Amino acid sequence: MDIDFDVKHGLEGVAVAISSISYIDGEKGKLVYRGFEIEDLVENSHFEETAYLIWFSSLPNENEIDFITSMLAKKRTLPKKIIEMMKSFPKNAHPMGVLRSVVSLLGMYSKKDSSTLENAINLTAKIPTIIAYWYRIKNNLPLIPPKESLKHSENFLYMMFGEIPKHSDLFDKALILHLEQGMNASTFASTVTASTLSDIYSIITTAIGTLKGPLHGGANEKVLNMFKEIKSVENVEPYIYTLISNKEKIMGFGHRIYKTYDPRAKILKHWIKDLFLKDNVEYFEIALKVEEIVIKEFKEKKIFPNVDFYSGILYNYFNIPSEFFTTIFAMARIVGWTAHAMEYRKNNRIFRPRSIYNGPKGLKYKEVKGVEKNG
Amino acid sequence: MDIDFDVKHGLEGVAVAISSISYIDGEKGKLVYRGFEIEDLVENSHFEETAYLIWFSSLPNENEIDFITSMLAKKRTLPKKIIEMMKSFPKNAHPMGVLRSVVSLLGMYSKKDSSTLENAINLTAKIPTIIAYWYRIKNNLPLIPPKESLKHSENFLYMMFGEIPKHSDLFDKALILHLEQGMNASTFASTVTASTLSDIYSIITTAIGTLKGPLHGGANEKVLNMFKEIKSVENVEPYIYTLISNKEKIMGFGHRIYKTYDPRAKILKHWIKDLFLKDNVEYFEIALKVEEIVIKEFKEKKIFPNVDFYSGILYNYFNIPSEFFTTIFAMARIVGWTAHAMEYRKNNRIFRPRSIYNGPKGLKYKEVKGVEKNG
Repeated sequence: MDIDFDVKHGLEGVAVAISSISYIDGEKGKLVYRGFEIEDLVENSHFEETAYLIWFSSLPNENEIDFITSMLAKKRTLPKKIIEMMKSFPKNAHPMGVLRSVVSLLGMYSKKDSSTLENAINLTAKIPTIIAYWYRIKNNLPLIPPKESLKHSENFLYMMFGEIPKHSDLFDKALILHLEQGMNASTFASTVTASTLSDIYSIITTAIGTLKGPLHGGANEKVLNMFKEIKSVENVEPYIYTLISNKEKIMGFGHRIYKTYDPRAKILKHWIKDLFLKDNVEYFEIALKVEEIVIKEFKEKKIFPNVDFYSGILYNYFNIPSEFFTTIFAMARIVGWTAHAMEYRKNNRIFRPRSIYNGPKGLKYKEVKGVEKNG
Repeated sequence: MDIDFDVKHGLEGVAVAISSISYIDGEKGKLVYRGFEIEDLVENSHFEETAYLIWFSSLPNENEIDFITSMLAKKRTLPKKIIEMMKSFPKNAHPMGVLRSVVSLLGMYSKKDSSTLENAINLTAKIPTIIAYWYRIKNNLPLIPPKESLKHSENFLYMMFGEIPKHSDLFDKALILHLEQGMNASTFASTVTASTLSDIYSIITTAIGTLKGPLHGGANEKVLNMFKEIKSVENVEPYIYTLISNKEKIMGFGHRIYKTYDPRAKILKHWIKDLFLKDNVEYFEIALKVEEIVIKEFKEKKIFPNVDFYSGILYNYFNIPSEFFTTIFAMARIVGWTAHAMEYRKNNRIFRPRSIYNGPKGLKYKEVKGVEKNG
């Protein structure tokens, strides 16, 4: 067998699948879902419709949008036993650990004969309930059951806070921005899980556990924590220059694929700027100053804010605690995760790469242990 | 950025890391852990010692073996709340789904300041308890708490059945055979999770969920179910030739890396043959006949039995139900999973491969939806 002994560290530039789900132009800063630019979709579409587009590869007609909307609305409730278990979880458990565990537990309650697509829709419907219920349980608040009449995004905010806040359309659009992004680490890890023909609950627990890492989705939480630490615009310069001189990572910047401004960050920044003109938007001025310094200091390296840099400011505007930010990412990205798992399986091949061995060879137990040959 | 537009389907032959943990010679049928051939280790070592070797890269001295043995023995108990939750799980839940869920739940109870290595040892100690407790809960049997004085493998069999069966040393050695096998799908998926700097509980839930698939660890359960269906040696020929003529997959054969007899299958077959001469070993004669036909019929393709083909016969000899076989695989392989995660992180780079886009481009929402330009 031919082995390429040149290690592909992080698999940069290595193509692992053919896909018609999304297209990224890293040089021009374009993200395209099924042929539509995301600027077009956030302007004109909404969560349910774009999710349909990603799963079914075309925009829905009237019957189809009714079908997906009602499927997503009807499947929101959690089994009672799961809610009971959630109430017994330690209150300091991280929301991403809770989400990973509850999705795994839901696997025990799934019908054996449901298709991967049905399960994908089912999990997409339930994840907002898991997040909102955990928020309420953690804060000793009574649970607010889902309302079938509400849109996916509005229902989530309603289950969190008991009301639909103003500008909730921006929350819906922020979900659209996070639906899909090609073979990022969580989508890739879950595609590897899917390639063994494991079940959808395993696929999604893999994705959630991978997204949780601070080098991936976990970054949005870290970014807002940084803003909180900085506290005021005056503190930005000393704070950021200290990070730079200590060669520490500045969260929310840089992307493997985008070599220009992340189109999602650009859209978010634009929305937040508009909001800022009308309302009090915490941390926006701090963010602008951080961005200005980092872009200036890393001019040659072409490092720009990524989606995680601005998403947290918007979620914080909606009173979502920073600890829950990465779960919001998961609530959207499950659409991409499940679409990739289904697409990969149409032409499935189990992932089995190689590693290059650089350890010892030819050791003998008895010689090393000093045991007599006939001992 | 350079992209190799030749899709590496299944990443065959692509090296993703440099590793000193294990070495596979697929042509000669050799598996080597940290320089020692597995034939040497199963002959001379035992689970705790080989686990130490894989984690710490050399065989332990007396103090070191005492340390690892006592660590693994002391950490076997599960939090009471976890046991209560397990008792409320649906009794028909698959043991691999239970294992994935309980490992995920354990993440909520972990101390924030424990190292990845401590967590790795902790989870390795607890997985046998999770498996045995679920077996007892599922079968409405009283739980048997772990005994600190027993070896890792003996304690597991004791928690399952209340006694240590004869030939339990073979069970210990079977674990050694399963400890590590390079960048297989579960190890690879969990390395991708590790590369985002996510936590160990996320890493291991990824690994378990990936191993669960029937193209990976799930195969050992499927193999024994095939033997059960075949029922008698006389039925082997019609059964297997039907599979062959229908071009259906015959479980337990073939391997991406081994192009000759899998060394682990060879060792297992040898042990089972010895046992068979002394005792009643169910399905062994059926297995021999299946192997004979498959090797003959696929001579040109060089398809041989893999580890999953014979492991189930041994586990069945110890009265472990087939549904639990893949959990036994996980109970051993966690050592390799955690060793790879720690090794990869020493020179970490987040995995972010590419996919090649073959979908539409340039679609416009309003044109597709038939909405007026100024509508």
